[in-house]
Amino acid sequence: MILSLPLTLRFSSSLPIVRRGSRYGFYLRHPPLRATFSAAAPETHNSSKKQEKLITPRSQDFNAWYLDIISNAELADYGPVRGTMVIRPYGYAIWESIQDYLNRKFKDTGHSNMYFPQFIPYSFIEKEASHVEGFSPELALVTIGGGKELEEKLVVRPTSETIVNHMFTQWINSYRDLPLLINQWANVTRWEMRTKPFVRTLEFLWQEGHTAHATPEEAENEAIQMIDIYTKFAYEQAAIPVIAGRKSKVETFAGACKTYTIEAMMGDKKALQAGTSHNLGQNFSRAFGTQFLDENGQRQHVWQTSWAISTRFIGGIIMTHGDDAGLMLPPKVAPVQVVIVPIWKKDDEKMAVLKATSSVKETLQAAGIRVKLDDSDQRTPGWKFNFWEMKGVPLRIEIGPRDVSSGSVVISRRDVPGKQGKVFGVSMEPPILEAFVKDNLDAIQSSLLERAIAFRDSNIVDVSSYDDLKAAISQGKWARGPWSASNEDELKVKEETGATIRCFPFEQPQGTKRCLMTGDPAEEVAIFAKSY
Amino acid sequence: MILSLPLTLRFSSSLPIVRRGSRYGFYLRHPPLRATFSAAAPETHNSSKKQEKLITPRSQDFNAWYLDIISNAELADYGPVRGTMVIRPYGYAIWESIQDYLNRKFKDTGHSNMYFPQFIPYSFIEKEASHVEGFSPELALVTIGGGKELEEKLVVRPTSETIVNHMFTQWINSYRDLPLLINQWANVTRWEMRTKPFVRTLEFLWQEGHTAHATPEEAENEAIQMIDIYTKFAYEQAAIPVIAGRKSKVETFAGACKTYTIEAMMGDKKALQAGTSHNLGQNFSRAFGTQFLDENGQRQHVWQTSWAISTRFIGGIIMTHGDDAGLMLPPKVAPVQVVIVPIWKKDDEKMAVLKATSSVKETLQAAGIRVKLDDSDQRTPGWKFNFWEMKGVPLRIEIGPRDVSSGSVVISRRDVPGKQGKVFGVSMEPPILEAFVKDNLDAIQSSLLERAIAFRDSNIVDVSSYDDLKAAISQGKWARGPWSASNEDELKVKEETGATIRCFPFEQPQGTKRCLMTGDPAEEVAIFAKSY
Repeated sequence: MILSLPLTLRFSSSLPIVRRGSRYGFYLRHPPLRATFSAAAPETHNSSKKQEKLITPRSQDFNAWYLDIISNAELADYGPVRGTMVIRPYGYAIWESIQDYLNRKFKDTGHSNMYFPQFIPYSFIEKEASHVEGFSPELALVTIGGGKELEEKLVVRPTSETIVNHMFTQWINSYRDLPLLINQWANVTRWEMRTKPFVRTLEFLWQEGHTAHATPEEAENEAIQMIDIYTKFAYEQAAIPVIAGRKSKVETFAGACKTYTIEAMMGDKKALQAGTSHNLGQNFSRAFGTQFLDENGQRQHVWQTSWAISTRFIGGIIMTHGDDAGLMLPPKVAPVQVVIVPIWKKDDEKMAVLKATSSVKETLQAAGIRVKLDDSDQRTPGWKFNFWEMKGVPLRIEIGPRDVSSGSVVISRRDVPGKQGKVFGVSMEPPILEAFVKDNLDAIQSSLLERAIAFRDSNIVDVSSYDDLKAAISQGKWARGPWSASNEDELKVKEETGATIRCFPFEQPQGTKRCLMTGDPAEEVAIFAKSY
Repeated sequence: MILSLPLTLRFSSSLPIVRRGSRYGFYLRHPPLRATFSAAAPETHNSSKKQEKLITPRSQDFNAWYLDIISNAELADYGPVRGTMVIRPYGYAIWESIQDYLNRKFKDTGHSNMYFPQFIPYSFIEKEASHVEGFSPELALVTIGGGKELEEKLVVRPTSETIVNHMFTQWINSYRDLPLLINQWANVTRWEMRTKPFVRTLEFLWQEGHTAHATPEEAENEAIQMIDIYTKFAYEQAAIPVIAGRKSKVETFAGACKTYTIEAMMGDKKALQAGTSHNLGQNFSRAFGTQFLDENGQRQHVWQTSWAISTRFIGGIIMTHGDDAGLMLPPKVAPVQVVIVPIWKKDDEKMAVLKATSSVKETLQAAGIRVKLDDSDQRTPGWKFNFWEMKGVPLRIEIGPRDVSSGSVVISRRDVPGKQGKVFGVSMEPPILEAFVKDNLDAIQSSLLERAIAFRDSNIVDVSSYDDLKAAISQGKWARGPWSASNEDELKVKEETGATIRCFPFEQPQGTKRCLMTGDPAEEVAIFAKSY
């Protein structure tokens, strides 16, 4: 499942380059100190009396850095109820780009969107034994409606398998009604005690797919197909080199036979479960009586899957690519791919510069590139450079009076700091500029993925004993080793090291193996890590 | 605000027509009796043992007809909790087309999407006096979370003005932060006692826009801009000739200074409030302390608006255009604009026919038309004709062996019944077919609107006395007459006739007027009607 993309740093392209070096230093009234970047009053919509804030260096305190980025890049804010989150426009735009991609893939593979009510009778949750055990501690319950105590408490949807099956029983009668392939985009509620914006919130947004099939093979294929779509999305759109695999029994979803997962390594080397796909077998269909008449006229329970990706994925993007300067967004999910900053000193230069920036903006927009022109009068170019760097915009175009004269622009890459990431004298000619920008967006996309792959691979340690495993985990790394031990042993590892089995990866080494814990033959290696 | 579209029945076009008349009668094993159309086992996904159902004739029982359509066209289903609704794929696809259009318009006018938590502390709702009065009888309350009784009850969002203002106070500091223009797509909950699918459900989907401005003029312009966008949407996309206007004080939203509305006349002549836009003045900003520093350094409360359209609109589309054969969808919101039905008798014909239908499907799809090819073996062409008519698909293309030989197809319009809506011998040549289909989709779109305008205008009675009004309402019509009487008089009309003021329309007749109730001078006419 590991996609190999060519590492093409196309920035040193053969397109016309006039000069290299630093200009505009005189505009940098805020010194561009990355570690002490001031995100005070970041944009026109939020520009006046806020306190100056610093982004904590990532190496110093990963969690504080993460929260600083979320606040300063205006991705999200805390809601008034503990554990809830307001997703702000810049964060929501990332979600919209995730939705656009996945929605297309779901439809291409025959799924239809629909919507189920979020209130579920409490009795439904109790029908599938392991499901109720898994979810009952996290439920939010509506007990009063229209001023009256309700006869039956209502669960605010933590996931929809139960209500989906209740409806499927009404829609499925024969094998001709199968497969039934649906998806919904919705909010879900889980009463989490330890919350963290995007990663774990009391309410979050997700898509949940639910399918019903006539055979176990079809259900298994569907579950695999969907984890493959998630994997491709992670690699190709979010530039996150997830490891796809199967969860251990202990870590399987409450109510599933098998859970497939994509596990991402964050910048602090903790694992983030970034998407899951469950083969539910007949667990829910037996609990709810979801049956069909097969081709031989026999009644059978359907075979099912469910699969989900949530706003947690945004946390994964932040923690995979961000650096001390702030957010760093892969071009394919970036709400703004290119920011244009006009630069002028004298008023008589302003008009010509703004005319050029507008024309460049139109060129790029017409080419389908998401562009922001930051032409506000209230901030210096230096402030804007830092601000948009902090917001993670992949490319910046600067245009000053001298550029206007020479018909060229200056372009900087977010992922290559300082002079090395800067190219002077790129022609403003629409076809040249468009090609240059597109090539560089592609190069950034590839480069972010390559960098994340290198980081991931240098932080996975192959282990063959429990001591090795403990050593790797204590260094904050992921441990990969053969595993065929018991659930009890797995729980012991968790208790003693804080690490859990993230998955048995689909990609397995060849050859005979011995379980790192017991020395017994083991068919597979597992990956152990601490996780979010 | 009334848009006048030319009535172009382009169906009798000058494109090549080979022959007219009825064929394929022999395939109609189900007689095509509209009034007793059998929607049993409607599609591959729902095709086996269901009971045969009839769609109640519209003229006989409008409500039963409406519910039959929703069930048989598979638009929605009842959820397990009283008053809740499952929106099925075909219904949800209509919602997606509404979303696509409005989302684009909102963004074009500078609004950003975001997401607020749905749980609102109960104390928030109490802050704005008329708001709590309006909403407290309809609240769903979460009282238990994670197994524990909560200290403060949480309201499941009935609308978001309160939580929005709570957040706005944190984001707005100076006039530079204004206007703040946001929107969210979300579910909302209102504990309604009398529910009806789409029209009034305990939980529904909507978009809610929320804006903050520095001046009352700006807020007023925004409120008007958004009701204009809704009006344009209703006319041009949904072919619903709404009447836009201002609500009376009695009917104004709980917490608003002014409510603008679009009112649609349903097939039973009852009014449906199909979208609203509120000028909130400073009501919420005063209650929540949402202030900004103006250009003179003075602290002021912001001026606000909110505006919403919901899944109720789907009910409006059904009840505006449907007929005894079922749903009739305007092409612009139809999930399927063209259905293709292959027809063959002998097996040796099948291959050639299916090849032709596939090729026609590709032609139309490439032209951006939403096409469904119904090539299932399990139903007769006659059954399929009736089924897709019932689903409201605007155009049907039939292709049989003789059509394949002559390189032509047969096309039927959903809105023109019988032979008159059928054209034989339309060339399969892609450019000709594409032009023919597009022209006819346009013609259907215009025709549905014209028809609805004619129906609306023939059912509005101008009245100048209360007796006139009572007579009009008792005939089931809308009454339009000058009004400057008191709130008490307005409530008396409601009590005595069941009708309410739907709006003071933006389009007002010239000249002096006398209030129909009091005889006093009146500046405006109001429209009275019974409503959903």
